[in-house]
Amino acid sequence: MKTDQIAQLEPSESTGRIEAFSDGIFGVAITLLALEIGVEEYKGATDANLLTHIYELMPKYIAYINSFATVLLMWLAHHQMFRLIKKPSNGLMLANGLLLLVIALVPFPTKTVGQFIDTDAKGIAVKFYTGYFLLVNFVFLLLWTIASSKSKPLLHAFASTEIVKAVNRSILTGLLINFICFGLSFINPWLGVTTNIISWLYWMVAF
Amino acid sequence: MKTDQIAQLEPSESTGRIEAFSDGIFGVAITLLALEIGVEEYKGATDANLLTHIYELMPKYIAYINSFATVLLMWLAHHQMFRLIKKPSNGLMLANGLLLLVIALVPFPTKTVGQFIDTDAKGIAVKFYTGYFLLVNFVFLLLWTIASSKSKPLLHAFASTEIVKAVNRSILTGLLINFICFGLSFINPWLGVTTNIISWLYWMVAF
Amino acid sequence: MKTDQIAQLEPSESTGRIEAFSDGIFGVAITLLALEIGVEEYKGATDANLLTHIYELMPKYIAYINSFATVLLMWLAHHQMFRLIKKPSNGLMLANGLLLLVIALVPFPTKTVGQFIDTDAKGIAVKFYTGYFLLVNFVFLLLWTIASSKSKPLLHAFASTEIVKAVNRSILTGLLINFICFGLSFINPWLGVTTNIISWLYWMVAF
Amino acid sequence: MKTDQIAQLEPSESTGRIEAFSDGIFGVAITLLALEIGVEEYKGATDANLLTHIYELMPKYIAYINSFATVLLMWLAHHQMFRLIKKPSNGLMLANGLLLLVIALVPFPTKTVGQFIDTDAKGIAVKFYTGYFLLVNFVFLLLWTIASSKSKPLLHAFASTEIVKAVNRSILTGLLINFICFGLSFINPWLGVTTNIISWLYWMVAF
Repeated sequence: MKTDQIAQLEPSESTGRIEAFSDGIFGVAITLLALEIGVEEYKGATDANLLTHIYELMPKYIAYINSFATVLLMWLAHHQMFRLIKKPSNGLMLANGLLLLVIALVPFPTKTVGQFIDTDAKGIAVKFYTGYFLLVNFVFLLLWTIASSKSKPLLHAFASTEIVKAVNRSILTGLLINFICFGLSFINPWLGVTTNIISWLYWMVAF
Repeated sequence: MKTDQIAQLEPSESTGRIEAFSDGIFGVAITLLALEIGVEEYKGATDANLLTHIYELMPKYIAYINSFATVLLMWLAHHQMFRLIKKPSNGLMLANGLLLLVIALVPFPTKTVGQFIDTDAKGIAVKFYTGYFLLVNFVFLLLWTIASSKSKPLLHAFASTEIVKAVNRSILTGLLINFICFGLSFINPWLGVTTNIISWLYWMVAF
Repeated sequence: MKTDQIAQLEPSESTGRIEAFSDGIFGVAITLLALEIGVEEYKGATDANLLTHIYELMPKYIAYINSFATVLLMWLAHHQMFRLIKKPSNGLMLANGLLLLVIALVPFPTKTVGQFIDTDAKGIAVKFYTGYFLLVNFVFLLLWTIASSKSKPLLHAFASTEIVKAVNRSILTGLLINFICFGLSFINPWLGVTTNIISWLYWMVAF
Repeated sequence: MKTDQIAQLEPSESTGRIEAFSDGIFGVAITLLALEIGVEEYKGATDANLLTHIYELMPKYIAYINSFATVLLMWLAHHQMFRLIKKPSNGLMLANGLLLLVIALVPFPTKTVGQFIDTDAKGIAVKFYTGYFLLVNFVFLLLWTIASSKSKPLLHAFASTEIVKAVNRSILTGLLINFICFGLSFINPWLGVTTNIISWLYWMVAF
């Protein structure tokens, strides 16, 4: 479809519907994380062994909480980023589409780490998990790089150089933290996960 | 991201997008409750044994209806609470995020009670279920405590001391009822569940 | 929460957020219908036997299309009903909640009929399916009865007696058709399903 | 319900709620695509064999990315099409409903191709997949044919003949590309999939 032609006719079209669509995908992805958690039906259930089964899911709870918190922070960052964006370009739409693609797949590394962190495969499970969030952060950086590029003025006038730099710093800090988590998971899987949890606790307080 | 800086630039930003995002998670979580309910395909199906299978799911129907009603009431309470809130603070956003985290996980205790209430594990299943809703109520209390704290004026001017007190009473009553349900489930599992059902029937009429 | 008190403070609050929330549940429920459809992975797959497997899912396709069309028509009816409603009452909210509860569970009778219509359990499967939609129609009638009751003026001024009567007729016709489908499924399961399909095809054309 | 009567009373009712509902279904369907991807829990997990398992899911990743990109492009096209539409007719609503029905079912051909492309059933799997998107394109053509028909003026005044022709060309090009993908999958399954991927990469750049 000749986007440009149509876009010229209705210049007032802002980022509203993209934000709503993105919110929908963030919201469904974050809720689907919970689907993995449950105790399968089994014969001979007693209070004692059901309690054990509920306790044994601990790695899944941690993975769930960690992914939920991370996606929620990303939604907040996405939300604030789009408040600075005046109008979408095609490149921005595509980068946003790529972000949604990786966000929608967060349940995959989450269930992988939840299932395998208490097995001998914990090394790969955690590297995959922390590496995946590193990838998500790179896509975030790509999105912001397109949004804030000087050649195409996509930002609102109130997005001063100072604000753009603050957002840059914030994204690069996020990338660095994720890179450290990824690196630490090569030394010790639990270290990688623990650093990940500490990192979003820090973000939430520093926010 | 420097929230405060950005927030100052667009003070008109209200709670709209948070509410929409929260509604999305409430809506998806409540709909996913139904996913657990179904009769697996099996060999030698006849009218008689299919009917039996449909009947045998009764504990799951009760758990579904009970959780659906509870989450729906919580959505209504969340809806009314946010009508009193003028603007979100970071603390409010985080407390709301924590609420969404526990709401999205409601399918887990729901399917646990639905699967195990007719087994010898009914004691733990019901304690887990009623205890989980007690936890959700505590998060609700936390959210409202942050929203209504006097040091940060987050509420609309029309939210008079009288209204704030009415909401306080309403949340504390909810907590008390859930605490009673939790307590009764230590005496008898069915008593805990029945009280839970009676409680939201009461809320709906008293509403 | 003291709804009435709060409601008085913000009388302009209309049905917007309830409609959005209802739309969300209709939308998720209708999309989850598709989750049941799939060919399980199996050993020794060839073009010929995969084609057979895809063909063998025919009852599930029919059940999916039938439920999708029915829920979509109900969403349209819900949409039009709420255009006539000025403001929600507590009773209306609860009836709407009940409607959402039964709509969210539509995947259950849908997968039941899809799985068992080609077995000896087809009788119960179809009675359950057509009976379930009869139930949904009753809840719709309840919702409209509350919305259009003369004692509480919930409708817009432009909802004349003539329009109210037209909606009444439309809902009662829906109920009658569903009752016939339910009745016919006692004579012959396929007759019940076929009538069901014909009925929404008719609605769509007559719409 | 007497749509015409009600519609006359509120002529201002535009396509807003239909778009929001459609967005919801597009969003949930696109997010559910990710649900199929995961490594099942298994005994004797080690770093080496988990890595192998993650690699072996490659066909599913490709299918996921391909379907995600395709549905996202369709959402964009849907979005732009509805910007040209002033008000919905019943026929348009039904064609849109049919589109949502086929969009919601995209996870089915997606998981079929992901599961069977590395088996001897790859021929049927790919034909089914590419053929399914051909079907979706036909429904898109139907929707636009109804929207742009001259007898019923559903389009905004700014939708000039030139714009309508541009949209026509764009949809017919899409159809042609999908037809080629479908045709090539008869020669070689991998050729069909590769062309499919190239086609949306092209669309994204040409967009």
